[in-house]
This record gives sequence, C-alpha cells and structure tokens, in this order.
Amino acid sequence: MDMNELDHMQVKLEAALRQRLSEWEQAHPGNLYQPVVYALEGGGKRLRPLLVLLGYSLYADTWEEALPAALAIEVFHNFTLLHDDIMDKAELRRNRPAVHVRYSENNAILSGDVMAFLAYELLLETRSPRLPDIAALFSRTAVEICEGQQLDMDFERRTAVTTGEYLEMIRLKTAVLLACALKTGALLGGATPHQARQLYETGITVGLAFQLRDDFLDTFGEEVTFGKKIGGDIEAGKKTFLLTEALRTATPTQKAQLEGWLENPSAPAEEKFRAVKTLFEQLGVGETTLHRIAEYHAQAVDLLESLEVPAERKQPLLELTGKLVLRRN
Amino acid sequence: MDMNELDHMQVKLEAALRQRLSEWEQAHPGNLYQPVVYALEGGGKRLRPLLVLLGYSLYADTWEEALPAALAIEVFHNFTLLHDDIMDKAELRRNRPAVHVRYSENNAILSGDVMAFLAYELLLETRSPRLPDIAALFSRTAVEICEGQQLDMDFERRTAVTTGEYLEMIRLKTAVLLACALKTGALLGGATPHQARQLYETGITVGLAFQLRDDFLDTFGEEVTFGKKIGGDIEAGKKTFLLTEALRTATPTQKAQLEGWLENPSAPAEEKFRAVKTLFEQLGVGETTLHRIAEYHAQAVDLLESLEVPAERKQPLLELTGKLVLRRN
Repeated sequence: MDMNELDHMQVKLEAALRQRLSEWEQAHPGNLYQPVVYALEGGGKRLRPLLVLLGYSLYADTWEEALPAALAIEVFHNFTLLHDDIMDKAELRRNRPAVHVRYSENNAILSGDVMAFLAYELLLETRSPRLPDIAALFSRTAVEICEGQQLDMDFERRTAVTTGEYLEMIRLKTAVLLACALKTGALLGGATPHQARQLYETGITVGLAFQLRDDFLDTFGEEVTFGKKIGGDIEAGKKTFLLTEALRTATPTQKAQLEGWLENPSAPAEEKFRAVKTLFEQLGVGETTLHRIAEYHAQAVDLLESLEVPAERKQPLLELTGKLVLRRN
Repeated sequence: MDMNELDHMQVKLEAALRQRLSEWEQAHPGNLYQPVVYALEGGGKRLRPLLVLLGYSLYADTWEEALPAALAIEVFHNFTLLHDDIMDKAELRRNRPAVHVRYSENNAILSGDVMAFLAYELLLETRSPRLPDIAALFSRTAVEICEGQQLDMDFERRTAVTTGEYLEMIRLKTAVLLACALKTGALLGGATPHQARQLYETGITVGLAFQLRDDFLDTFGEEVTFGKKIGGDIEAGKKTFLLTEALRTATPTQKAQLEGWLENPSAPAEEKFRAVKTLFEQLGVGETTLHRIAEYHAQAVDLLESLEVPAERKQPLLELTGKLVLRRN
C-alpha cells in the first residue's frame, strides 16, 4: 500500500458519501434534509473517516466493509459542527455561511439532531459481532465531545485557564473522535483488545497534535495557505495552547499587557493581533507549541511502531499522521 | 399481575431513574449535567418507559432486565423536549421554566445533545443478542421524530393542512416513540418477529389516540384536571385534529370565520378561544375527535387480543391503554 492507496481511499469515500447525499437530497421533509446535504457537501479534510479506513486496513486488504462506519463518523462530526456554530455564534464554516445562518437556527438544531441519528444508522449497517462494543465506544465518545464543548464554553467566561485544563478540553472536544475513528476501524478489521487500546492512544496523541497545530496556524500561519483568516483566536480572546502557555511563563508586566489586550473587545483587531503576537514571540510560545506537537507526533509514531502488525501495513497511517502534524492548512 | 404491579413498576422506574440522576448530579462539567438532571426531575407521566416494561412483562415474570432500555427511552424523550421547546419558543414545561429559559439556549442545545447519547449508552447496557435490531429501531425512531418535528414546524407556516397530513405528522412526532418503546420491551422479552410487529402497530394506534386526546383536552378539557392552561392551541393558531377536521367540514362562511380568527394573532385570547370553540361545537369536531380516539382504542385492543400471549399477561397493558385514551390530564 502506498500513497496512491490513500488517494484511492479518499476517492472511494467521497463516492460513498455522494451516494448517501443523493438519497438525502430526495428525502422528505426537504426542510430537514436540505441542510444535512448542504453541510456535508461543504467539504472538509474527511480526516476522521479516513482514520476509520486506515485503522481497518491495518488488518485487512480491502476496506470497503468499513465504509459505512467511516461515513457514520463523518456525519457525526458534521452534526457537532452545526450545533457548535450556533453556540459559538460562528457565521462561517469552510468559507460558506454556517447552517444556522444559511437556513435558520431551528434548522441547524433539528438537522443537526437528525445527522446524529443518521450517523448511528450508518454505524449500525456494520453487522459485525463487535457492534455492541463499537456502538458503546461511539456513544461514550459522543458524550465526551459534549463535555469538551461545554468546557470550551465555560473557559470563555473564565480569565485563568491552565495548560492542563486546556489540554483536557481539547482531548474531549477533538482528540477522542479521532481516537474513536481509528479504534472503530481497527475493531472492525479484527484488532486484539490490546491493539485497539494502543490505536486509541495513538488517535489521542494525533488529535492533540492536530489541535495544537490549529492553534499555531491561527496565529503564526499564512493566510494564503491556511485558507481562513489568521488571528481569529486572538481577536476573540480565545483560550488556546499559545495563550495558556504565554500566561504561564509571562512576567507580571507581560501578563498585565496580555490580559489588557485580551479583555478589551473593542481594541482595533489588527493592532491587538500584532501586540499579542509580539508578546507571544517574546515568550517563545510558538516554539513551545511546535515542540509539544513534535512530542505528541513522536509518541504516536512510537505507539504505531510497537503495534504488532506488518510494517508495510502501517505506512499510509504513518504518512497521514506526518502530514497532519506538519500541515499548513 | 394486577394494578398493583403497574404501580410497582412506576415506583421501581422512579427509583432507577433517581439513581442515574444522583450520578449525573456529580458529573463534570456541571454546566452540562445540571440541566439534564433538572429536565428529568420535572416529572411527566413516564408513559414511554412504562410501555417498555409492559412490553417486556408480556413475556417474562420479572422486568428488571428491561429497566435500562426503559430509562433510555425516557431520557431520549426528554432530549426531544429540550430541543422542541427552543424551536417552539415554549417557555414552560410541566409548570416550570423550560431548560432554555431556566439556563440558556446553548445549555438546552448541548445538554439535549448529551441526553440523546446518554440514552444510547443506557440502551447499550442491555446486552441482548437482539441489541443490533433494538438499536436500529431506536435510531430509525429518532430520525422519524426529527421528521415529525420538522413537519410540525412546516405546518405552522402553512394555512391549509389536511387531516391526513396532520395524522402523518403526529405518527412521526409522537406515536413512533410509544411504538418503539413497546416493541423494544417485547423484543427484549423474547417476542417473535410477528408479535413484535403487532405490538409496534398497537403502539402506533395508542400513540395517535394519545395525541388526539391531548388535542381534545386542550380545547374541551377542564383546567383544574388538565393541569395546564386550556386554549393554548387555539391561541397559537396551532394545527390540530380539531382544526383540520373543522376546516374539512366547515361551510365557506364558517371557514372564513375560523381563518379570520386564527390568522389574527392580536385578537384578544379569551374572545378568540370562545369564538373558535363555538365554531368547533357547531361543527361537532369534539365528538369527531372522541369517536376517532375510540376507533384507535378499539384497534389497539383488537391487536392486543389477537396477540398470542396468555390473556392475564396483557391485563396491565390493556388497563394502561384504557387509562391513556380516557385521561383527563
């Protein structure tokens, strides 16, 4: 299996999703299903379903059998985006109006709900003897993602958030779904319980690295490659790894300066961004973040290398992992 | 099994729910779980979980094994109420502020979401060989309930809704969950596929009768026994069985009068209620509704009588069915 196999998976995945979307396009009532189609047509990296297929292909030569579970995780992920965008009052998603803006808030609530249940239906198409475990993992993951989103909202209202608290929040909000995806594929493919646990841990470290990379790019990325506006986190005063680390290592003067900018929502955005970024640079939090990402990446690679599976089967997953943690968008 | 058994089930059900609530009271983050506890503490008839236990007890002498599935259906039902109350801008639920009023809209969205997944976790505690079928039924039901809620919202914006369309809406929004509850209990208890289908149909007819009774009581009930304000449906111009039947049988003059009142949101509530109720009385839609309820009840009884299960096992279910369709609250 080489890079072509990864591309091949992507193509098959899009085709399988396309087929579901063409069914939902016809489904009744249209006001419920149109926003579902709109949301899923919006693209995205399709990272989570790819992890299902990659987990499965560690154990089997074909991975078509894992497609419904892969789609389940993608549909579920998009459900969370519909509801998060209402709660976070985010107007744009993948450069298009968010569902609650394009349609209405009620549509985003209810079409989001139905996506969660359509995701379960897709998952349950998988008639594996391990289905009870897989469904339980999926449900626990869903509960944890809600917990992560709640913590994220709680943090918005707090001034002091530690790096440890922040990492726990992104573990719940982001990493557990990547871990669930990888483990689901592996369980379907026939992993031993020990291997399934190893792959879950791999998914967690990859997920943490993935989110820290996002934090890094939002301040230190380049607009043209990142594909979205740089500086959104600073403008919104969002708690990120950069900020919790900056506050942890700042002198009292720097801390006062940082808090002065971040607690001032009416400061001109450009000026605020430059000032906070300069403080981040003085404190070296960009490097700290890249260092932490490299550590998580190394842990993921170690976990994968110790996995008792033929080395050549691991290549696409190792390759994807590398691309994710070094990504520029 | 006699009426004491039904009371006994209720008590056990409340105790089992109480135990879960005491766990969720301690769960972290509190801002996510407190609204869950608040919603479930609010009471309600606990009709749906009771139907799970009654379905199970058609086949078995003990029904404790069906408790997690029963709680799953109750938690799921309350999830739908949290989201419906946001969408319908309903401020009160069971004589208390709705979750989105008592907490916030974001809390009602996210705590609602987590309740849906906690419901799945409860369902998955049931380690039955029929779990894949039960989980698939649960998921299909959840999708249909979203479809029903969407139709309900669609109808709010339409002037003409036929009785047939209205019945299809309440089948999806209300009846399928009662049917799912009864069938889930039966499948867990060991029903044959044919029996499970019969009980599903029984649940549908009971559910339709249940909702028509609600429509009836909202206009023709007595405040003191109904426990909530009479006339809310007419005040809001809501499409109900009474209204679709009234519009179907009205003379052109009566139709114009009805529409005049209903399309006038600024009409004094008391005057509007009396005028519309008088038109309903002239058209005999109260009797039409009671007649239809009696028909559904008779169908449910027929279905239950033809069910190949010892007659004495059916008594509590027949008794509950009778109480539901004749209820005054």
